[in-house]
Amino acid sequence: MRIGVDAMGSDHAPGVEVKGALAARFLVEAGDQIVLVGDEQAIRQHLDDADWADFIEVRHADQTIGMDEAPVEALRSKPDSSIAILAQMHAEEQVDACISAGNTGAFVAAAQMHLRRLEGVHRPGIAVLTPTFHGPVAVCDVGANVNCRPQHLQQYGIMASVYLTALCGVENPRVGLLSIGEEDAKGNSLVKEARELMKSDERQNFVGNVEGRDLFGGACDVLVCEGFVGNVVLKVIEGMSAGVMHGLMHELIQALPDLAEEIEKAGTDLMTKYDFNEYGGAPLLGAGGICIICHGASDHRGIMHAIAGARSLATHGVNERISELLSADKRTAHA
Amino acid sequence: MRIGVDAMGSDHAPGVEVKGALAARFLVEAGDQIVLVGDEQAIRQHLDDADWADFIEVRHADQTIGMDEAPVEALRSKPDSSIAILAQMHAEEQVDACISAGNTGAFVAAAQMHLRRLEGVHRPGIAVLTPTFHGPVAVCDVGANVNCRPQHLQQYGIMASVYLTALCGVENPRVGLLSIGEEDAKGNSLVKEARELMKSDERQNFVGNVEGRDLFGGACDVLVCEGFVGNVVLKVIEGMSAGVMHGLMHELIQALPDLAEEIEKAGTDLMTKYDFNEYGGAPLLGAGGICIICHGASDHRGIMHAIAGARSLATHGVNERISELLSADKRTAHA
Repeated sequence: MRIGVDAMGSDHAPGVEVKGALAARFLVEAGDQIVLVGDEQAIRQHLDDADWADFIEVRHADQTIGMDEAPVEALRSKPDSSIAILAQMHAEEQVDACISAGNTGAFVAAAQMHLRRLEGVHRPGIAVLTPTFHGPVAVCDVGANVNCRPQHLQQYGIMASVYLTALCGVENPRVGLLSIGEEDAKGNSLVKEARELMKSDERQNFVGNVEGRDLFGGACDVLVCEGFVGNVVLKVIEGMSAGVMHGLMHELIQALPDLAEEIEKAGTDLMTKYDFNEYGGAPLLGAGGICIICHGASDHRGIMHAIAGARSLATHGVNERISELLSADKRTAHA
Repeated sequence: MRIGVDAMGSDHAPGVEVKGALAARFLVEAGDQIVLVGDEQAIRQHLDDADWADFIEVRHADQTIGMDEAPVEALRSKPDSSIAILAQMHAEEQVDACISAGNTGAFVAAAQMHLRRLEGVHRPGIAVLTPTFHGPVAVCDVGANVNCRPQHLQQYGIMASVYLTALCGVENPRVGLLSIGEEDAKGNSLVKEARELMKSDERQNFVGNVEGRDLFGGACDVLVCEGFVGNVVLKVIEGMSAGVMHGLMHELIQALPDLAEEIEKAGTDLMTKYDFNEYGGAPLLGAGGICIICHGASDHRGIMHAIAGARSLATHGVNERISELLSADKRTAHA
């Protein structure tokens, strides 16, 4: 398997990407290769002393899309950007998967443009594994699709279930629909319509509406929501975990000043346990290929786990299983 | 001033409401009165030994709307419910403010029906003060309006600013619009249109898009969002603060078992510091009266602070100031 990595994506590119690729060597199968796409000279600086030639290939890209650029416009004006070249290489089967920690919107747009969608899929959605004390919850969509229709949400439940079963071994995952109350009458019209579709859908184990607070209480294994809400929730969690953690540490250190060191260590351990870098990136489920999105602030472990994640998606035939379940949807009304 | 309290709303009604009303005595002005609306017999049981007759009045209501009832239907089928009677009493000026910890949707619908809106207001919105390490942030709307238009969001920025200035003394509060990226191009169409309106609005200090993670980083004093998203965010914060806290405590106690007691105490102290019961309920801004919504799980302190909050809204002329700023909007296009 050949896995393409956008070497220019993360906040500390390309060092993080190169280091992550090198570290992934023993997490993939013998014979697998990594293709690093980006500024060749910059990439090679980080490869200097390593023994990499049989495992890593470098593919030069002249341009880079910045984090703050408007996705579609950037993609059009930068056909030689690492993201555009990577998606095109995947479409031409020069690689079997692609990974980027760069501009998510541009990566999603590039995937749409070059890879299209799996048969029957209305809109791809990004699934993120969110650590909770009851185990990881797959939240989908977290930002690929901010114009959701009920059918899109319905399919997110199925796709994220396939993903969670394949990667985490959760059998028959419980699918919840993010809403503002558990009752049928609660929510906006999108949620109410999606609920009706999901209730009667035998391809997923739908358990009903789930409120934001229940995400951490073990109410479901898959949480379905439209991309705007999902992205907001993800970032609230991110901001808050740091905030609460620092608040509690501060409080404890004030109360127990002699133990400042031990308290700080325990906090650091906990942060590590729930660090997004341990979670192997977020797949764009439903895309006509394997596309993994990493956090912009990823370190080399984030890239390394994403490479292993891309491998797992292929090994477990996640896309094939999604196609099998959704291809029948092709015949339903325009969604 | 006469402040009406739905005595049947909270999870532990009417005990919590009665105790909260009694405790509020020294937080309001001499001559103020509380009217408890609900099952008279049940209310009186909790008033037994107290010296209350000059401060509290009981108004019987035959019916109660449950937390899980569909708001509008419940309101229609239960005209003698405590919520319906309370809103009607406010409309007839038998009370000057009303408070409920019950079914939020029903309370909002009752306010719409009996109290209408302040001049120029398109849709009322619920504002909640969210504690952060940089001070409280007023988030508006958190659930009154799940069919938001751009003009509604624009007005939420103004109304929540007036509220925050009046109650927390924050001068010229910085208003952020909750989105999924700071750039103009990010967000859904609602957010993009609202952003344009807010940018050129001289009645508020608009600072642009704010992401979920920045809510805790001091990026703004007022955070504007549509009701579905706001409600989800609020509940994610609620679920998560409990979750992260317990996780960290667990980790710390494992690392430092001899200090279990001290660690638990520090955790409890922190939870108290950020307890919603300390925050005096959430006003339905823009309603044609003073309506305060309390958390269903409120204890007597939550009710007590809500009573003081209702007093403050009146004292500071929050509604008058909102009318002054928004009455011109009456002439703008249908929103």
